[in-house]
Amino acid sequence: MNEFANTPKPPYYAVIFSSTLKVNTKEYQEVSIQMEELALENEGFLGYEAARDGFGIFISFWKDLDSIKKWKAESEHQIAQKRGRAEWYKRFKVRIAKVERDYGFESE
Amino acid sequence: MNEFANTPKPPYYAVIFSSTLKVNTKEYQEVSIQMEELALENEGFLGYEAARDGFGIFISFWKDLDSIKKWKAESEHQIAQKRGRAEWYKRFKVRIAKVERDYGFESE
Repeated sequence: MNEFANTPKPPYYAVIFSSTLKVNTKEYQEVSIQMEELALENEGFLGYEAARDGFGIFISFWKDLDSIKKWKAESEHQIAQKRGRAEWYKRFKVRIAKVERDYGFESE
Repeated sequence: MNEFANTPKPPYYAVIFSSTLKVNTKEYQEVSIQMEELALENEGFLGYEAARDGFGIFISFWKDLDSIKKWKAESEHQIAQKRGRAEWYKRFKVRIAKVERDYGFESE
């Protein structure tokens, strides 16, 4: 957990999911992990990065828009999306973005 | 703090800064706040969202690539970038992305 996604050379896509929770239940965490595993099974999935300290940011990386569309439409994911709205999230915002450039640094 | 950025209708740009720290010192936190204030002064700055739980994600939103370039080149920011590499960050990755679409949800 809490790792850098090993994304390829741009361009690729990012789905930025920002959220605040009503309550951070164990069940929410379990479903979150299930959804991450579900994303992993998708052909165009490139990895994810996440952090939460009250405010949460979950970024999944994708090969193209078509892969994102398929992931969003998956039935298990649809159920989680419905429960998310009804039970877990106080507020969320989703931003679909095309990563055009990246660079990094690693200390020795 | 820990708020949603009130971004306009897409398209706009996101700078996704993911990082792990060597140490989370008070000074690092102070300089981070200074850098956020510095971003605020830029004409094309649209807001930011951030979360850290060991792994940190800081996303700043911008009107266009030109605004990002100006922000990156600012002298105070340049000094922080140098100190960041030398003192604070174990590793970081920067991704520049064009937000093409967004949607949200807010519970009643």
